[in-house]
Amino acid sequence: MSTKTGFIGLGIMGSPMAANLVKAGFEVTGYDLNAPNVAKLAAAGGTGAASIAEAIEGAEVVITMLPAHPHVAAAVLGAGGVFETVKPGTLFIDFSTIRPETSIEVAQAGAARGVRVLDAPVSGGEKGAIDAVLSIMVGGEPEVFAAARPVFDAVGKVAALCGPAGSGQVVKAANQLVVGGTYALVAEAIVLMEAAGVDAAAGLDMLAGGLAGSRILELKRASMLARDFKPGFRIDLHHKDMGIALDAARQAEVALPLTSLVAALIQAARAQGLGDQDHSALLAVAENLSGRSGRSARKAN
Amino acid sequence: MSTKTGFIGLGIMGSPMAANLVKAGFEVTGYDLNAPNVAKLAAAGGTGAASIAEAIEGAEVVITMLPAHPHVAAAVLGAGGVFETVKPGTLFIDFSTIRPETSIEVAQAGAARGVRVLDAPVSGGEKGAIDAVLSIMVGGEPEVFAAARPVFDAVGKVAALCGPAGSGQVVKAANQLVVGGTYALVAEAIVLMEAAGVDAAAGLDMLAGGLAGSRILELKRASMLARDFKPGFRIDLHHKDMGIALDAARQAEVALPLTSLVAALIQAARAQGLGDQDHSALLAVAENLSGRSGRSARKAN
Amino acid sequence: MSTKTGFIGLGIMGSPMAANLVKAGFEVTGYDLNAPNVAKLAAAGGTGAASIAEAIEGAEVVITMLPAHPHVAAAVLGAGGVFETVKPGTLFIDFSTIRPETSIEVAQAGAARGVRVLDAPVSGGEKGAIDAVLSIMVGGEPEVFAAARPVFDAVGKVAALCGPAGSGQVVKAANQLVVGGTYALVAEAIVLMEAAGVDAAAGLDMLAGGLAGSRILELKRASMLARDFKPGFRIDLHHKDMGIALDAARQAEVALPLTSLVAALIQAARAQGLGDQDHSALLAVAENLSGRSGRSARKAN
Amino acid sequence: MSTKTGFIGLGIMGSPMAANLVKAGFEVTGYDLNAPNVAKLAAAGGTGAASIAEAIEGAEVVITMLPAHPHVAAAVLGAGGVFETVKPGTLFIDFSTIRPETSIEVAQAGAARGVRVLDAPVSGGEKGAIDAVLSIMVGGEPEVFAAARPVFDAVGKVAALCGPAGSGQVVKAANQLVVGGTYALVAEAIVLMEAAGVDAAAGLDMLAGGLAGSRILELKRASMLARDFKPGFRIDLHHKDMGIALDAARQAEVALPLTSLVAALIQAARAQGLGDQDHSALLAVAENLSGRSGRSARKAN
Repeated sequence: MSTKTGFIGLGIMGSPMAANLVKAGFEVTGYDLNAPNVAKLAAAGGTGAASIAEAIEGAEVVITMLPAHPHVAAAVLGAGGVFETVKPGTLFIDFSTIRPETSIEVAQAGAARGVRVLDAPVSGGEKGAIDAVLSIMVGGEPEVFAAARPVFDAVGKVAALCGPAGSGQVVKAANQLVVGGTYALVAEAIVLMEAAGVDAAAGLDMLAGGLAGSRILELKRASMLARDFKPGFRIDLHHKDMGIALDAARQAEVALPLTSLVAALIQAARAQGLGDQDHSALLAVAENLSGRSGRSARKAN
Repeated sequence: MSTKTGFIGLGIMGSPMAANLVKAGFEVTGYDLNAPNVAKLAAAGGTGAASIAEAIEGAEVVITMLPAHPHVAAAVLGAGGVFETVKPGTLFIDFSTIRPETSIEVAQAGAARGVRVLDAPVSGGEKGAIDAVLSIMVGGEPEVFAAARPVFDAVGKVAALCGPAGSGQVVKAANQLVVGGTYALVAEAIVLMEAAGVDAAAGLDMLAGGLAGSRILELKRASMLARDFKPGFRIDLHHKDMGIALDAARQAEVALPLTSLVAALIQAARAQGLGDQDHSALLAVAENLSGRSGRSARKAN
Repeated sequence: MSTKTGFIGLGIMGSPMAANLVKAGFEVTGYDLNAPNVAKLAAAGGTGAASIAEAIEGAEVVITMLPAHPHVAAAVLGAGGVFETVKPGTLFIDFSTIRPETSIEVAQAGAARGVRVLDAPVSGGEKGAIDAVLSIMVGGEPEVFAAARPVFDAVGKVAALCGPAGSGQVVKAANQLVVGGTYALVAEAIVLMEAAGVDAAAGLDMLAGGLAGSRILELKRASMLARDFKPGFRIDLHHKDMGIALDAARQAEVALPLTSLVAALIQAARAQGLGDQDHSALLAVAENLSGRSGRSARKAN
Repeated sequence: MSTKTGFIGLGIMGSPMAANLVKAGFEVTGYDLNAPNVAKLAAAGGTGAASIAEAIEGAEVVITMLPAHPHVAAAVLGAGGVFETVKPGTLFIDFSTIRPETSIEVAQAGAARGVRVLDAPVSGGEKGAIDAVLSIMVGGEPEVFAAARPVFDAVGKVAALCGPAGSGQVVKAANQLVVGGTYALVAEAIVLMEAAGVDAAAGLDMLAGGLAGSRILELKRASMLARDFKPGFRIDLHHKDMGIALDAARQAEVALPLTSLVAALIQAARAQGLGDQDHSALLAVAENLSGRSGRSARKAN
């Protein structure tokens, strides 16, 4: 078995994912707007293509991993896009993190062409992509999910079907709102403790050990206290993801006041020039708001 | 060694704490406004007293565990209170969760009388108190903290000195703002997923396994999805604690926008008649806001 | 002088605006997807057209008044749209309220064709459109604004050039965030006063007479106290406008926490089934949040 | 008729109010902790006193105008306070802005002594006090309000009875939350317009003329655009008043999310060192949040 696979989007995430598919025995032909990315796939044992059409010719599986919904719309639905030349029966997996609305449009357009579609955004970052330990949140039909299992096994550690088309995106959005909000809460806790003259390290140890405990407190409290905001996952990306969460809420007709405020704080981080810092830099926003920016600046030296 | 100990406030938390001190070999004399509570201590091997003065007579250690700052102010600083008759050199531990401002006043008043004071609010709830596994957040001087170690060992699992007087309260406040905020975020995630037609149980499993993971997702996601809001820790108490967090922020001159909004949502829970429900009932507030109250109501049957 | 004018979009707002242009001596040919709307223009002294191309043939001025940015993008930039057949030198005015991003795209596409473009969203509602007293917020070049003056005089009371392309939309967005936020603040003031047993009518009179005074307090306090939420301007439309305000903030890279929260509250109004009520129905959202929904319901009878 | 009147608290507000009572024919004896303030009253035709007891001896009317609730509690209810020596039947008016809870306590304590009590916080500032054009929000009984009319006429332009004891404070709190919130909304509108390259002065003119119009836009838009934050009413005082609004909400058991966020933004202004600036300096907070602090700083030169 050597499944012919077309892979569109060979960037920071797509490149190691495609390489892991090659390692797992898939026959991968890839395309990217950026030629060196295509060359990299060839070096990893795949085949480079000069267009989407060439990449997906004869493919049983087509994969996209693209930055945002306009890229997906163009590469899949647009002129020269996947759905122009894709064969009926093809399994199409979009690993991009985009708004659910576009995933649903793609699924409907796929259905009209007999293509089996999954939205499958991931978490775990570049490191998770390289190590093939991504978490994969999937929307689509159960039998399509079952068919995609070998792909998910090749690139990830865990994959779960969360509902119909778009559900993967909604769960990813839910994940990002909880992550962003938790950083913002921990940031406010730190600002409060430090301003009150408390030993914040001792305080966070107590929080981490009780009901306030979280993966973020476990992994990030030391770096936050040290004002080490090297990414990690950049504010700019989290800003994009909060936009998706608010789009999803608007689509689902629900009001999310806390999420809305967290999105504003992440937008503030970006506006304050922290876009390329780790999302834990929400701490700097919380400090600046309380006129305590000196601390982050001082620690940064 | 059988340390003579006066214990003021034998309610839901104080009663098992006093009993655990008796078990650990302390000679405990207790007082409570409510006579049956005093009788319970006697039944557990302690001694009942008819007044604060009687309870603390000859005590080397004096402990208070009271509902709110006015009770502490009255019982410690007021007429007939602890500091009227306490001996210099006494170790005074206030386990109550109150605003840092009052803890600092108490510490200063104690210092003026030669009393060694710690503020030591706890988390872990009634069950933690009974099982002697409380987490204890302490403010005060290092040598006083060291002297109090046998008391903390008798009632808790972990105790940490977090800074000068009031620091225990600030850390407890920080803990409660993170806990309240995390519930509110998880609630918004659930509302979003359910409204979008996603399998929220599958979605929360994904969140729990990644960077969004938390003690709350681990322990409470099943009960939240089932709309089982039996306490646990009541909204009314969390409302009191958010008031302390906002007081602490005001005292420390920091602005906590997210904490402020979370406090408003917990106030809303209370205003909606959920004061005696578990704090995870923030989910019902999030649902009501989006006109989805039917779901909580239906599940509640 | 009888300026040949093409008018696309003859709905609730566009229909009376087109009629007012006819009254002012413009020679108006109009098109709408909805045939009865076209017939209405003919009855008012204009000419009906069966397509955009027909409506704008030979026109010196082309006007659009459409519901949202996708409609404008399609009708102006899309296949069969205005810019396919428009003559260079034409004055093009878009009265639609849409996101600034689309207005800027339209202005750029117009410039490439030698078309002079203004974005010119209005306030004043259906009544303002009928009475030709709209307020018109304009983005574009000063000489184009000057050229459009006769059009603005025919449909509005006041028009102001607020900056380059897109500026009209930004000012409209700013207007709507202040209006929505003011309703929400007045709603919280009313809820507080009523819950505290205060005579809210007397209280609002005091507010209206001092620094808290506003057009909204002046015009709407009586109807709000009476829970009379007949539109007026519907929550659904304000919800759309808050989406534009948040899009504009994202585009301008600014963080607007209060606006974000107001948008969530308006989304809540919609989710609670108040979408077709006046935007002053934010009072019902504020009441529901505090478990006081009975009052609005009772008054509604 | 020359009503004997005791006046406690002769600060920035109390001093001109007492002088206006003298002008109106009242026989005023005043006391203040600060001796020069007492001398000033004597110079204005009143009589100075060395204690509260001396100031109110034989008085038919007793007035307090003090900074915050602890001062009122001490001066009225405390040792040596008004209620120790006040005669039954005296009319007692507290013009201080304090939390409703304390006003209610004072009213109850007054009732127990046969004293007729009103809470009567004012707006209009120092200038309004000097010019005797204050707005007076009153809580208490109708017949007491009627009896106080000559006092109100001597110091204010308008006085309204808003309900039972504490109602004046609640209305003042409602006023302050609307004022603070309106500044914050206008600030976000300005930040959005300026960041988007819009002529904010032209934009605010449009807002001021429509449904977004307010006293604040009318009086303050020019100074805000010029970043002229000379008080006026200081952030520190508005911060105190937002604390009262949140206390009042807590007491009335209502959730005010927008008010909570506005209070956090005003706290931020203070934390950023703007406590002695006008409350319109909320604009600087909004700018800093979006990393645009240069503008306020530049304009400030």
